[in-house]
Amino acid sequence: MKKISINFICKHTNSSLFKGDAKEQISYVNSFSNANASDIVFVSKKNFINEANNSLSTTCLTSPQLAKDLSEFNNIIVSENPYLSFALLTNLFAKKFPKFIQNENHFKDSPTIGEGSLVSDSVTFGKNVKIGCNCVIEDNVSIGSNSIIDNNVVIHHSVQIGNNVRISSGSIIGSQGFGFAQDNETWVQINHLGSVVINDNVCIGSNTSIDRGTLDSTVIGKNVIIDNLVHIAHNVKVGNSTAIAAKVGIAGSTTIGQRCMIGGMVGIFGHLSISDDVIITPKSNVYRSIKKPGRYASLFPLLKFEGWKKISLLVSKLDKMAKFSRK
Amino acid sequence: MKKISINFICKHTNSSLFKGDAKEQISYVNSFSNANASDIVFVSKKNFINEANNSLSTTCLTSPQLAKDLSEFNNIIVSENPYLSFALLTNLFAKKFPKFIQNENHFKDSPTIGEGSLVSDSVTFGKNVKIGCNCVIEDNVSIGSNSIIDNNVVIHHSVQIGNNVRISSGSIIGSQGFGFAQDNETWVQINHLGSVVINDNVCIGSNTSIDRGTLDSTVIGKNVIIDNLVHIAHNVKVGNSTAIAAKVGIAGSTTIGQRCMIGGMVGIFGHLSISDDVIITPKSNVYRSIKKPGRYASLFPLLKFEGWKKISLLVSKLDKMAKFSRK
Amino acid sequence: MKKISINFICKHTNSSLFKGDAKEQISYVNSFSNANASDIVFVSKKNFINEANNSLSTTCLTSPQLAKDLSEFNNIIVSENPYLSFALLTNLFAKKFPKFIQNENHFKDSPTIGEGSLVSDSVTFGKNVKIGCNCVIEDNVSIGSNSIIDNNVVIHHSVQIGNNVRISSGSIIGSQGFGFAQDNETWVQINHLGSVVINDNVCIGSNTSIDRGTLDSTVIGKNVIIDNLVHIAHNVKVGNSTAIAAKVGIAGSTTIGQRCMIGGMVGIFGHLSISDDVIITPKSNVYRSIKKPGRYASLFPLLKFEGWKKISLLVSKLDKMAKFSRK
Repeated sequence: MKKISINFICKHTNSSLFKGDAKEQISYVNSFSNANASDIVFVSKKNFINEANNSLSTTCLTSPQLAKDLSEFNNIIVSENPYLSFALLTNLFAKKFPKFIQNENHFKDSPTIGEGSLVSDSVTFGKNVKIGCNCVIEDNVSIGSNSIIDNNVVIHHSVQIGNNVRISSGSIIGSQGFGFAQDNETWVQINHLGSVVINDNVCIGSNTSIDRGTLDSTVIGKNVIIDNLVHIAHNVKVGNSTAIAAKVGIAGSTTIGQRCMIGGMVGIFGHLSISDDVIITPKSNVYRSIKKPGRYASLFPLLKFEGWKKISLLVSKLDKMAKFSRK
Repeated sequence: MKKISINFICKHTNSSLFKGDAKEQISYVNSFSNANASDIVFVSKKNFINEANNSLSTTCLTSPQLAKDLSEFNNIIVSENPYLSFALLTNLFAKKFPKFIQNENHFKDSPTIGEGSLVSDSVTFGKNVKIGCNCVIEDNVSIGSNSIIDNNVVIHHSVQIGNNVRISSGSIIGSQGFGFAQDNETWVQINHLGSVVINDNVCIGSNTSIDRGTLDSTVIGKNVIIDNLVHIAHNVKVGNSTAIAAKVGIAGSTTIGQRCMIGGMVGIFGHLSISDDVIITPKSNVYRSIKKPGRYASLFPLLKFEGWKKISLLVSKLDKMAKFSRK
Repeated sequence: MKKISINFICKHTNSSLFKGDAKEQISYVNSFSNANASDIVFVSKKNFINEANNSLSTTCLTSPQLAKDLSEFNNIIVSENPYLSFALLTNLFAKKFPKFIQNENHFKDSPTIGEGSLVSDSVTFGKNVKIGCNCVIEDNVSIGSNSIIDNNVVIHHSVQIGNNVRISSGSIIGSQGFGFAQDNETWVQINHLGSVVINDNVCIGSNTSIDRGTLDSTVIGKNVIIDNLVHIAHNVKVGNSTAIAAKVGIAGSTTIGQRCMIGGMVGIFGHLSISDDVIITPKSNVYRSIKKPGRYASLFPLLKFEGWKKISLLVSKLDKMAKFSRK
């Protein structure tokens, strides 16, 4: 991997040189314990200053406030939004998209498509699309410019994917929704005729499932980020810039507002409406709509097991306790 | 897509014409907001009547009770089980199985098998089986008539799949169970020699995992429906007509009765027995057997975060409160 | 499948003949109800003795304590750790790795690689590695001796896998971590430059996702066992010999000790530290570090639904009840 100058780093990460030599060449971005002298480290908080000063690195990225205490560094780069600059820095050192790429000439704008991937002739591509290996992209899918699909991803028919979207390996987009009619003891499957619309700048983790809508589409707003092993059911709408952590489940026809932060393993029941700017603590149970912004939780206390047995029994008898305490 | 007459719809969806022209041609089934004049819409409840009457559609499917209020429709189709008729209607307009199909001549009854799918010579097929792309079907699997396997599905050796089964993309059937013996600090894997038996009319979602049994088989009863990202462990038995929503986990050797409805993200511990006709609220914790039919829940209340901290502390001190209130 | 002598079984399962004929040939290991006369059955507990004696089998594996009560068996094999011997026994009867294998000559030590699997030229292999079908193994991955990768597995670049590791179908190792910087309402992805290190004797279930570290690696200690549909986020460290059951989620940068047992569907928040020898009851919420060994739980009681509504309301008003009871 070739080295990158401090000057180039400042130019591409919204940062500037606080002290040092802009021409110095940086090998890599690394952790305090693994960094060599030519690596850059990231100092995000005051309580990392000692560890940073003791590292072998001679170049760091930090905030203007912390810069003066980083006495052991020859080169200090500062940023008003250092975490954002760090994200941009990791992108400068990112690995290229992996091998196995073949150019398929029968597609317009010739996306790169990995070996083993099966792409219908009716798929349309923006510019600079990259598709990994062993994917299946069915009929009438559209994929916008600069989008990246990793390996072993399935995109079912008619799904619309915007620009700058990333879908990690093993995810399934546009599978049939879980909607059935009952005919005595038989379940008759509703054939979900809607699709999935994924807007620009969405990032989706690995082994995630997003089901197609019943008649209209399941919709993921722009700038939404979704982690691994998430389930998004038919007809769900997710508002712009919302973050959904790993293993969340959102049941059918629920609407999530904008700029929400849904913690990992949260379960949201079906046919609910969650307001904009709601933060839900990981693992919580959301069984009713949330109409006001704010932070919500629904978690039993974590107890030693013996204590749990006692407390759990008392909770289940709270109605009797309530009567008792009123006497 | 070709149009379908109202007469044909009535004949194939257990419904009849309440009013209108049986020869009229219908283009598609659609939502109130997206329907054109030639589309049919579905009116399931009284509170959709206004929206329905305001749509562009001129044909609807509904119940006899609601028909008289749908004054804006030229053609009204009615059914005693309108939700079932809707399911059958969506199937009339369903997309054909996607492309990439090749006929492999060395299989009896020539199933259609998508490109990239690897199917052992020892697999046996019923009639009219469809297998998508990039699947792996190992030795001695059997797949019954009219069953559909989507893309990137893995069926491990010796799994038995009945008729009219659908398995969505990314699911893994027959992987090794999570059973180990301890040899000091080493875990020694039990090689699971049982298999998985999936009976007729089962529907399985995407990215679901069903493990093979230790000696006997894990069994999914007929008419069972299972959603996405569900885990069914070794030796589990699921009774006929039970519905299992997304992200449920069922631990090893548990038996679930018939006609149960297990809500999304419910966790059921191992070696339990759940009676027939049990409904479990989504996200609940089932840590003991359930012997009587009925509806069960296990959910901490959803609170504003600051309130949660206070309440959670009080719950963890309930034993002290209990003593206090008795003085 | 060829038969195996009792003598051979004793020699390879840490067991000895208590009574019977060491030369007798055994067909298979089976359950009490399905065993034939030539099959061996496993009697793990006293309350299985009747069922065992009533089976058709004439050979059993058990503990020295139970042997004397198994009066109906001609041949009794005993072991001081019978569950371990059973695990070893199942391995004697295990099915061979499935078909579709081709030898790729351009790899050193010629692993067996299934059809449809795409393996970068830069991957290094130990001896006797087996890779299933439709996998993707990206650049610079290393895989130790005797490791088995099932079907449709993705191993992203630079992941290090030790000896005797098994990864079941559909799992994704080394996908991008869920780390983003905020730039107003846009999320900017941190490119995760670390990797995943999986040490010797690790077993990973199906459809599991393990993300790569931000700068350093996500680390799975030796002898760790991980079940299906588990999420392990970036920078997590799992200590040696820990067991993680199905559908667990471990958020970013959390450290788990050695010899822990994490029950199914447990959620562990990010940036926590869990001590050695901690047992967590399935479905629990771990929202704080655990500093002492022991067993922990966090589960609301399971109630009939109507009761739940009442109790849940009382829990949410515990602060008022607490005041009331103090008057």
